[in-house]
Amino acid sequence: MALLDGGEADHLAGERATAQFDVDAMKVAWAGSRHAVEVNDRMARLVASDPVFRKDTRTMLSRKELFKDTLKKAAHAWKRIVELRLTEEEANLLRLYVDQPGYVDLHWGMFVPAIKGQGTEEQQKKWLTMAYKFQIIGCYAQTELGHGSNVQGLETTATFDPNTDEFIMHSPTLTSSKWWPGGLGKASTHAVVYARLITEGKDYGIHGFIVQLRSLDDHSPLPGITLGDIGGKFGSGAYNSMDNGVLRFDHVRIPRDQMLMRLSQVTREGKYVHSDVPKQLLYGTMVYVRQTIVADASKALSRAVCIAVRYSAIRKQFGSQAGGPETQVLNYKTQQSRLFPLLASAYAYRFVGEWLKWLYTDVTQKLEAKDFSTLPEAHACTAGLKSVTTSATADAIEECRKLCGGHGYLNSSGLPELFAVYVPACTYEGDNVVLLLQVARFLMKTVSQLASGKQPVGTTAYMGNIQYLMQCKSAVNTAEDWLNPAAIKEVFEARALRMAVNCAQNISKAPSQEEGFSELSPDLLESAVAHVQLIIVTKFIEKLQQDITGHGVKDQLQNLCNIYALHLLHKHLGDFLSTGCITPKQGALANEQLVKLYAQVRPNAVALVDAFDYTDHYLASVLGRYDGNVYPALYEEAWKDPLNETVVPDGYQEHLRPLLKQQLKLSRL
Amino acid sequence: MALLDGGEADHLAGERATAQFDVDAMKVAWAGSRHAVEVNDRMARLVASDPVFRKDTRTMLSRKELFKDTLKKAAHAWKRIVELRLTEEEANLLRLYVDQPGYVDLHWGMFVPAIKGQGTEEQQKKWLTMAYKFQIIGCYAQTELGHGSNVQGLETTATFDPNTDEFIMHSPTLTSSKWWPGGLGKASTHAVVYARLITEGKDYGIHGFIVQLRSLDDHSPLPGITLGDIGGKFGSGAYNSMDNGVLRFDHVRIPRDQMLMRLSQVTREGKYVHSDVPKQLLYGTMVYVRQTIVADASKALSRAVCIAVRYSAIRKQFGSQAGGPETQVLNYKTQQSRLFPLLASAYAYRFVGEWLKWLYTDVTQKLEAKDFSTLPEAHACTAGLKSVTTSATADAIEECRKLCGGHGYLNSSGLPELFAVYVPACTYEGDNVVLLLQVARFLMKTVSQLASGKQPVGTTAYMGNIQYLMQCKSAVNTAEDWLNPAAIKEVFEARALRMAVNCAQNISKAPSQEEGFSELSPDLLESAVAHVQLIIVTKFIEKLQQDITGHGVKDQLQNLCNIYALHLLHKHLGDFLSTGCITPKQGALANEQLVKLYAQVRPNAVALVDAFDYTDHYLASVLGRYDGNVYPALYEEAWKDPLNETVVPDGYQEHLRPLLKQQLKLSRL
Repeated sequence: MALLDGGEADHLAGERATAQFDVDAMKVAWAGSRHAVEVNDRMARLVASDPVFRKDTRTMLSRKELFKDTLKKAAHAWKRIVELRLTEEEANLLRLYVDQPGYVDLHWGMFVPAIKGQGTEEQQKKWLTMAYKFQIIGCYAQTELGHGSNVQGLETTATFDPNTDEFIMHSPTLTSSKWWPGGLGKASTHAVVYARLITEGKDYGIHGFIVQLRSLDDHSPLPGITLGDIGGKFGSGAYNSMDNGVLRFDHVRIPRDQMLMRLSQVTREGKYVHSDVPKQLLYGTMVYVRQTIVADASKALSRAVCIAVRYSAIRKQFGSQAGGPETQVLNYKTQQSRLFPLLASAYAYRFVGEWLKWLYTDVTQKLEAKDFSTLPEAHACTAGLKSVTTSATADAIEECRKLCGGHGYLNSSGLPELFAVYVPACTYEGDNVVLLLQVARFLMKTVSQLASGKQPVGTTAYMGNIQYLMQCKSAVNTAEDWLNPAAIKEVFEARALRMAVNCAQNISKAPSQEEGFSELSPDLLESAVAHVQLIIVTKFIEKLQQDITGHGVKDQLQNLCNIYALHLLHKHLGDFLSTGCITPKQGALANEQLVKLYAQVRPNAVALVDAFDYTDHYLASVLGRYDGNVYPALYEEAWKDPLNETVVPDGYQEHLRPLLKQQLKLSRL
Repeated sequence: MALLDGGEADHLAGERATAQFDVDAMKVAWAGSRHAVEVNDRMARLVASDPVFRKDTRTMLSRKELFKDTLKKAAHAWKRIVELRLTEEEANLLRLYVDQPGYVDLHWGMFVPAIKGQGTEEQQKKWLTMAYKFQIIGCYAQTELGHGSNVQGLETTATFDPNTDEFIMHSPTLTSSKWWPGGLGKASTHAVVYARLITEGKDYGIHGFIVQLRSLDDHSPLPGITLGDIGGKFGSGAYNSMDNGVLRFDHVRIPRDQMLMRLSQVTREGKYVHSDVPKQLLYGTMVYVRQTIVADASKALSRAVCIAVRYSAIRKQFGSQAGGPETQVLNYKTQQSRLFPLLASAYAYRFVGEWLKWLYTDVTQKLEAKDFSTLPEAHACTAGLKSVTTSATADAIEECRKLCGGHGYLNSSGLPELFAVYVPACTYEGDNVVLLLQVARFLMKTVSQLASGKQPVGTTAYMGNIQYLMQCKSAVNTAEDWLNPAAIKEVFEARALRMAVNCAQNISKAPSQEEGFSELSPDLLESAVAHVQLIIVTKFIEKLQQDITGHGVKDQLQNLCNIYALHLLHKHLGDFLSTGCITPKQGALANEQLVKLYAQVRPNAVALVDAFDYTDHYLASVLGRYDGNVYPALYEEAWKDPLNETVVPDGYQEHLRPLLKQQLKLSRL
């Protein structure tokens, strides 16, 4: 729990005393509302206080034990949700704080939404009724052993047989085996399976089908179905709690009405017909899912940063004077210059995620009004944000681990598991490089349309200002000038636009558009990143233009916003200089200002991570403990390792003693 | 084994056929000599063909099973070494290819060298005789729970008691517990322990002591000694095979002659006296250890690159035309621009490592001649190379994992374990940031001495050319001009020198040298990196000036050298532009040339990783298989997971069935 038990020392009290802002008000700014703080806090404590949800020995469990533990926690969570009559919001938060990937994530996050989005009303009524009560457990079977990003390349077939009014689900090749879907291997009874729809001898491409996989009596796979887990994954604990699965069909028949038929149908006779529901509706789901991924990025990053900041305030090394205490590593500028930009990024992602939530509502309303005009922009924007925030978060978690020195390498630090469980976010729901290329394609299109006078919308609106942005020069003259949001915004806009225009010009020199795009793709990735970073910076700046209450809160966020922007400027200095947006002198001033900002964050650092309001249970890190009492905790944690069950290790008699006693039995060769 | 069994298809045969160079000759260039190829190959095969050394289920073992397996492999390896009368070179390679961290690494790599370096001849005779035969197992107990980088801050005490002629080893605080030493937790019988030497009431600072930890009869810890393992670490398998340990002393007495007395002694009366052996001799060991770490970096990086290149040639995605096969992902420029610089880095690190081996010999000879003049430069150089190569390798392994898409996340890809086992290299033997600051300190000193006319030596010799390098402008005018080694070297020298001089000037403006150094430390890190990258680029260029035989070998290495340099130039473009070494136009030309170089590497990529000559056993990756037969292997590997022992998972009856049957027992609330 975040609060200390009576009488125990708070080793970070000194750090908390130096905070120059109202931490409770910052909690509200972080969570989004007082209600959000309250409900998050309540659910986090509910989980933390329940012994079933303990996770302190998770990394020591065997795969089978871990999976069983996940089943147990999922059932227990459901039991609590029902008993306490939790709202949907509360239930989602409870699952979040249970913090162990499992089949329920896919059931609620993919199976249910797929049926909602792609099923007819009748199908929804039938299947969702069961799914909502967990009478069935569903997963989302799309990717195959040989096919990931390219959905159109999937090989599984669903061939309509008009004789029996059934589809025949089949895996024609080894590479067509469904591979990776979470919850598929062991837990799910059903799946939405994506397969090539074939009827009247024609291949109509990829469609979704509801397929029962296992008997509801004894959970055994149905005839013709091969199911299994695809094996261990990165890390101890981590995503190994999930039964990512393999699935093969040997001519498995399902009723025709299990094709998801909202957008298109196959008639009793086998005719393929489109409904009048516009296909664009599906994109709404994609925006929704990616918005949750950005929210998850800020959550994962803030956890890692919270651990690293607290431990850096406890850990001391070097710099003792005349036998006095050593210096807190958080005081070192090298530590600050690596850690504080990550702290700033956590806040930046949090606010851009909040904005994305608004964007999703906006897109949904427009879709309902059949206004598809902003969809490509919204799609590019969410794809880009998903890519940039997850890549940066994965790197940042590992950086936080390194910032904790050797002890960060211990499982008890929580950081190895956090990294291992987080990194798949860079690959799932769209590989990050593939997504950035989609963003780049959209940017190239937007640039090409500028000439024809078409006004770019939403997050690309700045491109309409091309006349100015292509030739403007930053007016920054002192380090303090970089604190001006307009100065920051201008150079980020100019950089993004100039990089996009450069790419467009270079592509136009190529023999063909496609060849140019392919040849220039490494540059296009960088151009897309520049655009997305601009979005994040802009949304942070816009956030600060809103009403933010609480003593000192806005000042702190202003510092973090500046750090976020200026550290990017420093990191991508080559972009800004080569496009002539700033001069080397101005780059040096930004760097100078950055170090000053670090000094301003320093006394507030611990309070800024306290504002995330994470329980010790959720952090699951001896280094990140709220009370900072790190060393006794590290020491105690060590003895839990199974290797410490005996003082003399298993294997001594067989493999150590004969060696030491020079009694290894040698073969005569 | 790398070779194919008769009759099996080589799915990469097409790739191998396009190679434009003699792969066997490249193997020689990589390994250093024909002899090295032969002995590496022989030892790798010896290990790969021995069932005891299997590691395909390693990530599935529990901690205890894994540790026992490590003891077994270590004993078996020793048995084979003795039976086959292997030379030291062969034995070291055999251990390398066994590829499982364990107590033997510390015994041979730290315990023995510490006694060799710091023990008197008498001590060496006594202890090394036993160590060489494994009558004792030793480790190196330096770091403590509260003390890592700052060796002078260690708290363990060794207090001389003249009454009994003994030292009393004691752990006065919790933070003084020895923490991290490999082999300490369970396997070692002895340790070289670093402790504050106290005699006649005076603290003489840190010294080494040989301490027996466990009974040679039954392996139980000796009285007053607490020993244990410090718990699980990052990843499955990985470094969990090692018993990194905790050690506490409760007034443990050891004979006076177990202090390592080569450099200083305590007399029978308790007088502390220095010997006439110069302290600098110890630095030789440090150069040696760091040289092996750089060699390990090229080994780890090349393994990851080998896996990613081969799999990228097999994996196809998108771009099919009219139902034809999809495009190999290795053909995508985005893949090439991420992967080929890593391939180039593997070669670059290999050659700089080879040079470091020479440097070690050179340093040793000079030390023996009591010439300490080049020692600071050699020390800075090795510290910097250790830091830069290990940081880049850790990032690169993870990048290779991501380049393998989703399947890279599976343990069967080998990459998660390779990453997890590798990353501690960034922290041990000097935290990478601490080391870079040492390099920076040396650079600042060198710069400050330039004015007084002192000629910088070795890898800093270029700084003597300050007049020219501070004002030169690159003459590059076309993309091809960047293929000129002199053009590359010039801009790397100018960048490194100008960054160092900038830092020195900014420090001189600070109230004090120390304050300036601290304030500027983030810039100093970048300056140090620029210097070290110059060293690597220079050594690669120098390698190419040597005689390299074999059809096309030099051409390929030339391409890789250019890629290595130009990708750094692109990555650190901000440095080159802000110091005015190149213009934005020249930066763009470098980038243009880079893409052309990728196209030249493409047909040679698979052959370039074949030249590393790794067996499938050593790679331990279904994605990196020599024959490229990836998919059946992935599929087969999955079924080995313990979770697949039963179709219906453990826990179904307790936690899934009641949920599905709506029979969870709810509490009445």
